Amino acid sequence: MRKSIATVSVSGTLVDKLEAIAAAGFDGVEIFEHDLITCPLPPEEVRRRAADLGLTIDLYQPFRDFEAMPELDLRRADRKFRLMERLGADLLLVCSNVSPLAAGDDDLAAEHLRLLAGRAAEHGIRIAYEALAWGRHVNDYLHSWRIVRAADHPNLGVCLDSFHILSRGSDPIGIEAIPGDKIFFLQLADAPLLAMDVLQWSRHHRCFPGQGGFDLPGFLSHVRAAGYRGPLSLEVFNDHFRQTDARRTALDAMRSLIALEGTAHEAAAPSGFAFAELTGGLRDLASALGFTRTGVHGTKPVELWEQGEARLLLHATGHEAALTAIGLESPEPTDAVKRAESLLAPVLPRVRARDEAKLDAIAAPDGTQIFFCRTAQPGGWLQDFDPARAGSQDVTHIDHIALAQPVHHFDEAELFYRQVLGLSPQESLEFADPYGLLRSKAMTGGGTRMVLNVAHAAGQPPSQHVALACADLLRLARRLRAEHPGLLLPIPANYYDDLEARHEVDPELRELGVLYDRDEHGEFLHLYTVTVGRVFFELVQRFGGYQGYGAANAPVRLAVQHSRMSP
Amino acid sequence: MRKSIATVSVSGTLVDKLEAIAAAGFDGVEIFEHDLITCPLPPEEVRRRAADLGLTIDLYQPFRDFEAMPELDLRRADRKFRLMERLGADLLLVCSNVSPLAAGDDDLAAEHLRLLAGRAAEHGIRIAYEALAWGRHVNDYLHSWRIVRAADHPNLGVCLDSFHILSRGSDPIGIEAIPGDKIFFLQLADAPLLAMDVLQWSRHHRCFPGQGGFDLPGFLSHVRAAGYRGPLSLEVFNDHFRQTDARRTALDAMRSLIALEGTAHEAAAPSGFAFAELTGGLRDLASALGFTRTGVHGTKPVELWEQGEARLLLHATGHEAALTAIGLESPEPTDAVKRAESLLAPVLPRVRARDEAKLDAIAAPDGTQIFFCRTAQPGGWLQDFDPARAGSQDVTHIDHIALAQPVHHFDEAELFYRQVLGLSPQESLEFADPYGLLRSKAMTGGGTRMVLNVAHAAGQPPSQHVALACADLLRLARRLRAEHPGLLLPIPANYYDDLEARHEVDPELRELGVLYDRDEHGEFLHLYTVTVGRVFFELVQRFGGYQGYGAANAPVRLAVQHSRMSP
Repeated sequence: MRKSIATVSVSGTLVDKLEAIAAAGFDGVEIFEHDLITCPLPPEEVRRRAADLGLTIDLYQPFRDFEAMPELDLRRADRKFRLMERLGADLLLVCSNVSPLAAGDDDLAAEHLRLLAGRAAEHGIRIAYEALAWGRHVNDYLHSWRIVRAADHPNLGVCLDSFHILSRGSDPIGIEAIPGDKIFFLQLADAPLLAMDVLQWSRHHRCFPGQGGFDLPGFLSHVRAAGYRGPLSLEVFNDHFRQTDARRTALDAMRSLIALEGTAHEAAAPSGFAFAELTGGLRDLASALGFTRTGVHGTKPVELWEQGEARLLLHATGHEAALTAIGLESPEPTDAVKRAESLLAPVLPRVRARDEAKLDAIAAPDGTQIFFCRTAQPGGWLQDFDPARAGSQDVTHIDHIALAQPVHHFDEAELFYRQVLGLSPQESLEFADPYGLLRSKAMTGGGTRMVLNVAHAAGQPPSQHVALACADLLRLARRLRAEHPGLLLPIPANYYDDLEARHEVDPELRELGVLYDRDEHGEFLHLYTVTVGRVFFELVQRFGGYQGYGAANAPVRLAVQHSRMSP
Repeated sequence: MRKSIATVSVSGTLVDKLEAIAAAGFDGVEIFEHDLITCPLPPEEVRRRAADLGLTIDLYQPFRDFEAMPELDLRRADRKFRLMERLGADLLLVCSNVSPLAAGDDDLAAEHLRLLAGRAAEHGIRIAYEALAWGRHVNDYLHSWRIVRAADHPNLGVCLDSFHILSRGSDPIGIEAIPGDKIFFLQLADAPLLAMDVLQWSRHHRCFPGQGGFDLPGFLSHVRAAGYRGPLSLEVFNDHFRQTDARRTALDAMRSLIALEGTAHEAAAPSGFAFAELTGGLRDLASALGFTRTGVHGTKPVELWEQGEARLLLHATGHEAALTAIGLESPEPTDAVKRAESLLAPVLPRVRARDEAKLDAIAAPDGTQIFFCRTAQPGGWLQDFDPARAGSQDVTHIDHIALAQPVHHFDEAELFYRQVLGLSPQESLEFADPYGLLRSKAMTGGGTRMVLNVAHAAGQPPSQHVALACADLLRLARRLRAEHPGLLLPIPANYYDDLEARHEVDPELRELGVLYDRDEHGEFLHLYTVTVGRVFFELVQRFGGYQGYGAANAPVRLAVQHSRMSP
């Protein structure tokens, strides 16, 4: 289907917006009136720019507070029709009336809309009537269809907007009652499920399909079943997208539509972590945690350190320690890269020597490199390393990896991990940091667990970390406390006073500085190393079917990390 | 009354918080459990630090999900009582139960609370029971009082929290039904009037009294009438305050309590603007707008430029043009400064030569200097300038002054202008800037109109400006267009196409680039100069009783200002 987007969905001037929208591969745009009014170019020039960029102008919007008013005002509409002719737009969105002066009179509304459609027809223009969720009398899409059907004019149809329909809990199956050719336009927006005033929700918190909590695939299936053949158009009011780079937002928007349409290349979700790659010379830390150097890359200054199925690729550079890449186990790496590419993820060029294994990588929104690997495959990436024998088996595998995401790009990151990698978003959590609230969301699937944390603007400890699963965390903790004092993050005694008031726990937790959590499925033990550069390690052990990440203890970690930062 | 504050209301570690709270002059604190758990100091040391700072520990909180559970659990309470003994706290807050396991059984709740109070009494501790607005069965303060009265234990009373009571629309007059000595504690928080989930509203949007929309003075009058004699304590969860400097937030908190108590020095609100003081050598611009240099300061490099009752103090420095000070007409400047001082506003030292007029100044939260003047008084500040004759009379006076406020300090600024200067907040408005939403709020009183705009983080045009009232704006605009092309901000033709579709307006507005707005009281014409440094001027003319500031046109101004900024 053709793809379109409202100019209000991205930042900048109207010209910036059109260029970014075209660059992302959209076919058309909805021109939001406000963007035209503040634009120094005449409508004819906007029309020419859009045409030069290969964009059609699919809709001009919004025209407000028209139908069922005490006095019919066609003068204002005439002006807009003339403007639309100059702009080359032939479809006008009319929102249901919100004025306290409007009458709750369907016959009058239909009569006014019929007259408007007749006048529009003289200009070759059609009218798409939309029920706003907060319309004064008309706020349900079936009500707007009832009025449009009564008005019975070929130049009058409905505009369906997923936000206005799903935000008020209306069942979209009723869309199938509307003939496809009377659905003149389709606007799509997702939103997180918030309990708040619907107008504020709409104006600030809409997001692209797949970033929120609405069932957009289900919604679209009803629109398709009705026989709609027009464009899929995104209309998103979002405080973050207003502030982010228009080209990046437009690409993210296009990715959401490709995923929604279901036309991306298919690929299975990753089944776990192949490796974590870190800079900054973390050998001593890896060694203390029981990792053994098991290989050296044939051509690059990279060492492989292993323990159980946990693998670290350590660069020997003097840069600040940081997590730069993640290897994911993929049953078919080629398909995974094709899917990523079809969803507009940047595929990274990779220089390799002739004999080295082919490794496909893409860039995540925060710049982290994601590699798709099949470790067990003969001739796989491990062949690049000269093998050695692993020693300790305290750590069994990488349990999860946590990455900090800039606040304005959190929605983009969620969509990336959800659609490109096939992970499912879990509940969004908030916890207190001494200097702000931290938002956190786990993305899981197969054997892969990622945690995305919002990075605050204010100075705060880095939240990049690799969590290592342990077979016997207490044994490892005992060894680390004995052999490497200062390696583990100290935990305040007050934490244990509170913990012991709530639960009967092993007193050794206090001695070892091990944290404890439980959920309805099981229990969780964990501890943290001190931070090196921008990275730290977490050691975890899950008991029973514990599903979480010890988020209840995150405020303790953050407070201790803050107190250890140099002022 | 004694003044207290919950540690959760300010940022930082527990020690940071205690120091900031003491520095602001509070008598006591509520220790929020989370702050103790994350603190590396043992409770005895926290107790000592607080005592050294002159702070009593008035409350330990919260103790959750206790009453009317299927099994009575006194073990957890015992642990907390022992902790409180170490901490030196003798009052525990128990919130009404939110657990799905809790029974809706008042008799059982009363029985459990009576047993808890009995156990507390053994430790010399009292229990304050609070109805959370989202309590599972107990969510109204009268319901909590009913249970406390039924439990009938001397160590059990209620805790009243203005947010929990006012957010659910309960009438606080019922507080007078509770004997004062059974109100064990009083927590105060204001909040903007938002239609949203009450838990989210409480956790993110509480603010200090006078910063929101609740009637806190009325609430407090009922608590006093009931005979409460304990402390006034602030408990505020606010996303901004979590990120701002704790000392600044604590001072703001104390200011709010002094204002609420009504013990600040009384002073009349300012009746208008005496002057605006600007750096950056704006003589040419002032001259173009029709101002005449009417005086030169006797000892400072400052010139007085006048037109009608509008006065500009222009510094001849080469610094970037900026608004540095505002003179307000005050019927009694000495009282105004005393009020500001009693509300903890910083009074600025001022060096003056022997014969110069005494001018009292304070600093606004954003650093702007505020002077209190009585211009008409013999020997007033104008005596410092050698007089000359004013020429043009196009401008009559300063209509309003707009200042940009950092987003995290907007609430502080509102409280300052409301309480220190006696201005009343008007409706909060939002409008689109090409790179974000701009929030704006007018503060008015007497003849004084200030506009506070939230400054975005992203690059955006400066929003410091001085709006000058004109006797005949069109005449002045004609002269400026003819004599000073390039001085006025150009307005897109598309703006006029839209304006003319909505209203029948004088075609000369388009020729002159004058903007138009109307409200139910009257009409408004305005235009802007280009920006110099960080400042621009607005020229305005009000017709009828127009109350606004042309906010509907602000997006057009912002878009044009953006397009003129160097990339």
